[in-house]
Amino acid sequence: MMVVLVLGDGMADRPIKELGGLTPLQVAKTPSMDKIAKLGVCGIMDTISPGVPPGSDTAHLAIFGYDPSKVYEGRGVFEALGIGLDVKKGDLCFRSNFATVDERMMVLDRRAGRIEEGGEELANALDGVKLESFPEIEVAFKHSTEHRGVLILRGRGLSRMVSDSDPQVENVSVHKVLPLERSREAERTARILNMLTEKFHEILQSHPLNVKRRAEGLLPANFVLLRGASVLPKLEPITERYGIKALCVAAGALYRGVCKAVGMDLIDVPGATGTVETDVIAKAKAAVEGLLKYDFVFVHVKGADNASHDGNAQQKIRMIEKIDALLGYVLKNTDKDELVIAVTADHTTPIAVREHAGDPVPLAIMGPGVRADSVQRYSEIDCAEGGLGRIRGLDLTPTLMNYIGRVKKYGE
Amino acid sequence: MMVVLVLGDGMADRPIKELGGLTPLQVAKTPSMDKIAKLGVCGIMDTISPGVPPGSDTAHLAIFGYDPSKVYEGRGVFEALGIGLDVKKGDLCFRSNFATVDERMMVLDRRAGRIEEGGEELANALDGVKLESFPEIEVAFKHSTEHRGVLILRGRGLSRMVSDSDPQVENVSVHKVLPLERSREAERTARILNMLTEKFHEILQSHPLNVKRRAEGLLPANFVLLRGASVLPKLEPITERYGIKALCVAAGALYRGVCKAVGMDLIDVPGATGTVETDVIAKAKAAVEGLLKYDFVFVHVKGADNASHDGNAQQKIRMIEKIDALLGYVLKNTDKDELVIAVTADHTTPIAVREHAGDPVPLAIMGPGVRADSVQRYSEIDCAEGGLGRIRGLDLTPTLMNYIGRVKKYGE
Repeated sequence: MMVVLVLGDGMADRPIKELGGLTPLQVAKTPSMDKIAKLGVCGIMDTISPGVPPGSDTAHLAIFGYDPSKVYEGRGVFEALGIGLDVKKGDLCFRSNFATVDERMMVLDRRAGRIEEGGEELANALDGVKLESFPEIEVAFKHSTEHRGVLILRGRGLSRMVSDSDPQVENVSVHKVLPLERSREAERTARILNMLTEKFHEILQSHPLNVKRRAEGLLPANFVLLRGASVLPKLEPITERYGIKALCVAAGALYRGVCKAVGMDLIDVPGATGTVETDVIAKAKAAVEGLLKYDFVFVHVKGADNASHDGNAQQKIRMIEKIDALLGYVLKNTDKDELVIAVTADHTTPIAVREHAGDPVPLAIMGPGVRADSVQRYSEIDCAEGGLGRIRGLDLTPTLMNYIGRVKKYGE
Repeated sequence: MMVVLVLGDGMADRPIKELGGLTPLQVAKTPSMDKIAKLGVCGIMDTISPGVPPGSDTAHLAIFGYDPSKVYEGRGVFEALGIGLDVKKGDLCFRSNFATVDERMMVLDRRAGRIEEGGEELANALDGVKLESFPEIEVAFKHSTEHRGVLILRGRGLSRMVSDSDPQVENVSVHKVLPLERSREAERTARILNMLTEKFHEILQSHPLNVKRRAEGLLPANFVLLRGASVLPKLEPITERYGIKALCVAAGALYRGVCKAVGMDLIDVPGATGTVETDVIAKAKAAVEGLLKYDFVFVHVKGADNASHDGNAQQKIRMIEKIDALLGYVLKNTDKDELVIAVTADHTTPIAVREHAGDPVPLAIMGPGVRADSVQRYSEIDCAEGGLGRIRGLDLTPTLMNYIGRVKKYGE
């Protein structure tokens, strides 16, 4: 017995006037989702709690059964893990942007003109830098996409209780990193980060790539803005908790990072991009193949959330139909007698809001032993009448693992 | 976008034999509640948790999003705030009754014959009293209604861990105030209260008003019974938590007090009495006007609970219809494109029980973006089939604030 969980990021929505008062899930043609709803049991799920808009990181932690209010230690570490960095206990991770500052340290562009090329070359110039005053601190810097990168500090006595240098807006000064608590560790960490930031600026300012960018009239990527100080959370791996092998089929660094943090194996799927262009059938194939070796396969599809942030209802509908095609492939190529298949979202991203909202998400689970209810279609409205009632994100993984007999008895 | 929350105190009930097995909400003609249920999303709500009868204070704390198990510090402070007293951090508040005791300190009447006149005069005689042994302790005493009043002690080292002097029944001795824990503060506070109670008794015994009452054959109001030691709870104001302006339209002191404690502005509505005679249309007008300045307007109507405590089903039905008229006025005089309107109760008060019970209450929410379900009528039974499922009181305010985009994302 195996489980496939397919998650359509931001797929849930609210009724939309332009769609005749329907949600994109109601409008989209979703024969496979509907089949799962019809033959399975449905419900709605508050990933965090009713009304609370989940972040992507906390949502996924909760969905995998880890209470973010207990284990969450910031987002940066998941980004670092997700782009393949090796993060150890105590390592301090940041998300970073290459930015453009002027000589007064005013932020002219938080994304250095959304620099598209050379990010890796610049990152290499920063990776491994040493500070004279703190020779024991190791610095790792890795480029991810466009202007984005990750910084890791390794060494004793580092604290995540420090502020961001990223002001989040432009035409203001770079923020000095400050300790967020009165501790020697936080004060020392802030000092290290301010010195390091200055050193990075020196290196970037004179880097040949920036000399070239200036000559071409482009904004130089002459500064590294840091945000989201984060350390590895203490998590009992999902593989140990349930005695399973677990695979993650996801393209986005953050999702890959959360999956890795909870102990899943990652797979690279050619054509899986984490955008609306992603090759869902390639992901479906990877999932089906994964079931030969793994008990639990998690498939993350990002596109519907991107479309929602763009306020593009039609694209969201198309993306939902792509996710449905993914589910169709899985349904067609697996044995229904040995598979529990679930479909849900991590949060509602209403087209009208373009941001995560706190409305519950629909959930449908089909498989042997599931108590099928009378719900006929997969949507936010239909699933609310289902036999699962209204559950919390934290309860999803135990619910799924229970169907395959992997949850330990509590008490005797 | 704005929110109006209308709360019919104790409005929920159980099926009543004399009503043909229906609840008062099912029998009452409630076109506006039904409209909200029909066009909106419904559910049932456990104000505290399933089966637990909520107190009025804890119910309202929960409904505003404050976990009473974490923040509740007794009821007296809300009564004090609700009658307009200025309560500061560390102040110790009590609810009090003027009572009649005999020379052996036996309680003859806990309400001094439900004294109707002169309460304010008596209170003034007690307000500002000084104890010789504790000259640094400030004493404020304020009359509220009939025999009821509030005592506040201000000074260093006061503890709320002291017992009541009010025995809650008659023909027994006044209780000595005892420390409820072994601490210097609790012991000192008990000593202060016992001395103060004696001093109050001396003053009241010889007060001209009581001399007159005795001459008229009335019971003298010669004692102050204290109960519910309470201090100001530490609460993040609702206004800061959600970045909103919030208005409370309520007449009862307790409800006003809870609203003030969570940071709402209060308004006095002529004709709003906190009884079955209250002018609901005056309250509705105040709510609608409030929406010009406030993001969140809370309207509390007490009468249905009074009728329930009296076991008067017909009066409860009439009161529910009055609350429906209030909702009708709000619906008629607001723009449905910019208003989220919710109707619920704080607890079930079954006519057959005449006390708060732990059954869930019905909830209906109508407004832009709400996922309308198939519920057609507002009642305890109908709403249980709604798209909100079953939520906790704690989740109500986040749920409402989410519809107007006021809940901060949790995580990134």
